[in-house]
Amino acid sequence: MFKKVLVANRGEIAVRIIRTLKEMGIASVAIYSTADKDSLHVQIADEAIAVGGPKPKDSYLNMKNILSAALLSGAEAIHPGYGFLAENTLFAEMVGEVGIKWIGPRPETIELMGNKANAREEMRRAGVPVIPGSEGFIRDFHEAKTVADKIGYPLLLKAAAGGGGKGMRFVYGEDELSDKFDDAQNEARASFGDDHMYIEKVMSRVRHIEMQVFRDENGHVVYLPERNCSLQRNNQKVIEESPATGVTPDMRAHLGEIVTKAAKALAYENTGTIEFLQDRDGHFYFMEMNTRIQVEHPVSEMVTGLDLIKLQIQVAAGLDLPVVQDDVSVKGHSIEVRLTAEQPEKHFAPSAGTIDFVFLPTGGPGVRIDSALFNGDKIQPFYDSMIGKLIVKADDRPTAMKKIQRVVDETVVRGVATSRNFQKALLADPQVQRGEFDTRYLESEFLPRWTQTLPDNQ
Amino acid sequence: MFKKVLVANRGEIAVRIIRTLKEMGIASVAIYSTADKDSLHVQIADEAIAVGGPKPKDSYLNMKNILSAALLSGAEAIHPGYGFLAENTLFAEMVGEVGIKWIGPRPETIELMGNKANAREEMRRAGVPVIPGSEGFIRDFHEAKTVADKIGYPLLLKAAAGGGGKGMRFVYGEDELSDKFDDAQNEARASFGDDHMYIEKVMSRVRHIEMQVFRDENGHVVYLPERNCSLQRNNQKVIEESPATGVTPDMRAHLGEIVTKAAKALAYENTGTIEFLQDRDGHFYFMEMNTRIQVEHPVSEMVTGLDLIKLQIQVAAGLDLPVVQDDVSVKGHSIEVRLTAEQPEKHFAPSAGTIDFVFLPTGGPGVRIDSALFNGDKIQPFYDSMIGKLIVKADDRPTAMKKIQRVVDETVVRGVATSRNFQKALLADPQVQRGEFDTRYLESEFLPRWTQTLPDNQ
Repeated sequence: MFKKVLVANRGEIAVRIIRTLKEMGIASVAIYSTADKDSLHVQIADEAIAVGGPKPKDSYLNMKNILSAALLSGAEAIHPGYGFLAENTLFAEMVGEVGIKWIGPRPETIELMGNKANAREEMRRAGVPVIPGSEGFIRDFHEAKTVADKIGYPLLLKAAAGGGGKGMRFVYGEDELSDKFDDAQNEARASFGDDHMYIEKVMSRVRHIEMQVFRDENGHVVYLPERNCSLQRNNQKVIEESPATGVTPDMRAHLGEIVTKAAKALAYENTGTIEFLQDRDGHFYFMEMNTRIQVEHPVSEMVTGLDLIKLQIQVAAGLDLPVVQDDVSVKGHSIEVRLTAEQPEKHFAPSAGTIDFVFLPTGGPGVRIDSALFNGDKIQPFYDSMIGKLIVKADDRPTAMKKIQRVVDETVVRGVATSRNFQKALLADPQVQRGEFDTRYLESEFLPRWTQTLPDNQ
Repeated sequence: MFKKVLVANRGEIAVRIIRTLKEMGIASVAIYSTADKDSLHVQIADEAIAVGGPKPKDSYLNMKNILSAALLSGAEAIHPGYGFLAENTLFAEMVGEVGIKWIGPRPETIELMGNKANAREEMRRAGVPVIPGSEGFIRDFHEAKTVADKIGYPLLLKAAAGGGGKGMRFVYGEDELSDKFDDAQNEARASFGDDHMYIEKVMSRVRHIEMQVFRDENGHVVYLPERNCSLQRNNQKVIEESPATGVTPDMRAHLGEIVTKAAKALAYENTGTIEFLQDRDGHFYFMEMNTRIQVEHPVSEMVTGLDLIKLQIQVAAGLDLPVVQDDVSVKGHSIEVRLTAEQPEKHFAPSAGTIDFVFLPTGGPGVRIDSALFNGDKIQPFYDSMIGKLIVKADDRPTAMKKIQRVVDETVVRGVATSRNFQKALLADPQVQRGEFDTRYLESEFLPRWTQTLPDNQ
């Protein structure tokens, strides 16, 4: 087992990883930006090394400084957490090249899954159902037309090398196809020097269901119960839960077979999560794969009893997974609420400042709060606005809903604006209570209604 | 189910009960002394009623005021927590007489188990093994001599009506028996107007093993995995765990049969805990029964997944236990550390004051902290010094030990002295690490050694 591990992150996930390292008897090295010198992850780590200025590019994205910190401290492995460099192929490669173990999949896997068109093709080849659309790439309007005739409208034109919306167009009918195809392809060529395109059907009334999978270096695969992360705003998850309402044990086993097949086809190492869209007929379609631990991993830990960070470290150290599929069962229901330093009342504008008072209602059975907050802590404007994860587990979903409502209600943070009241309203929403929502529900239905209840609108 | 319940307590246990009431959709009524007006249990309850001045006798022991608060608020039941009036027969009777449900056993049961001599006889009659000694009561030296000849020395003479050490004498040999018997009986007569005596063998090298049991009003009985509470100082538990090292599944089942038999013989209602001494041969002897929820109930919740406060409320409402014995299994290992506002360095002198800063390291899998502390909270000199319970659960005892050490290490409380450093040293002790300790270990072996390490002694 490793003697020392560097955690290339900050905030709650750095704290989360450092705690597991301590419990495993492994020395922990934190890195920090100058703005974070008093942060919790710095305080609880065995060592802490400054890697640059407050801006992410100067510190938490500063590959050379982080690598230097790892080499300087004698760390044998790096855990990247999520965000920052967690899915950066180049960084994962550099880490390996200096003889340090990357706690995550191989760089080739990160690269492959990072390119969404390649990922789609790879998954199709592995027998994973993908969103209806083109097979392979298309180069001209005629190929596009053939696909469109088959799958119907609305559809999405996407640049194979794309990202950030470049080379992407929604097409609502046949009359738009030719012009939009030319536009998108020209933009793709100009942006990426690559005019390969692909097409996906636009799915409506779908849920975001994801499944996390582990594969060790000896090829053993274990998948976890699915998570429902359909409550989203701006493609950011707001509330997550496991298991998903309406996913039967048979459907879970079916999804498990799919992700197992995918993990084997990729010769995947460590953990990753495959995100699916689930349509109203219960069919699942591959959306993308995240090649890192996810924010919402605690809901899976709550229903399985596993420490997923520990599994990551064990697998990275070359050990076999300590559990087999039959050991992994769903016990109860878990819900996670993301507490952010934002003003939902003002278009979710981020909020920074000093925490004058914080009360996180830990206590009683089935409550867990993952956070780096403390009294006097400073919320920086440079980083992600998530400041805590409120997580509960109970025997069933209705009981878990009551518990998470109680926990959110008791939570007090003063000094910055937070999403608490917004989350409170969202949890009280009848459709959320019943588990009846798709990926559009929060933004298209709940948010406009909630906004109207605000004092400014009355 | 009840619509409203009054919680006749303060501190962490009041908070614990109020939270479960909220999750069950039951309105909660807190009571408070004038010193506690800003306490957490007052803040989170739906209603709060002042019942008197800071001293316990004026408020939390003030039966008339508490009953008035219950009647005034329309509470249908009273949960007494532990301590204060939780085992007061008169109060339990008065509660029943005004038509309010007592969340605990019948007053007769509290009375019976409160008299240690009667409890011993009752348990013997039920077939529960008791500490070797007299059968029934003894009235004169000759009867005492007959018992002493049979069980040997050292032995303990006890007044049947006793309490607080009155009418109690250790006898180390036959030469002392006559004088000490006269002394003890005279003291018993003078103190209680009752000269019935009984005798128990003094057991050495024993562990404190206890088992909690539930019995609903329809007679269903469920017992929980045993707890080891052998680490004690001044008969106060310091660290508790479940399950107990060295208690095999067979021994657990055997103990379960004993407590089931006892619960049935008593026609017990609600929950209680039978405390046993376990000798080095693995035999168990009845010590006493606590007719209330105990401080250390969370370790049982952690290994069983049950909410024991919820079970208490359900049973008190006349519902059947929602679980049967086969549903109750031990999963993993749980340890609880009691954090007190005391100075272990100064003979455990209590410490009062305002909490300038508190950091309770919630977060990650298997951590639970039951506490009413918050930044700015006032620790009063009037009440018990326990300010928080640090609880962990892991797959096995060694992992749980590492986790609790990590949690204690991260815990920060400023403004009052605490037992944190003492607990840290205790957890690091090799015998504690190995689980090799009896009820005398902490006071007789660990404490003298630890005291010598303090700066004043160097």
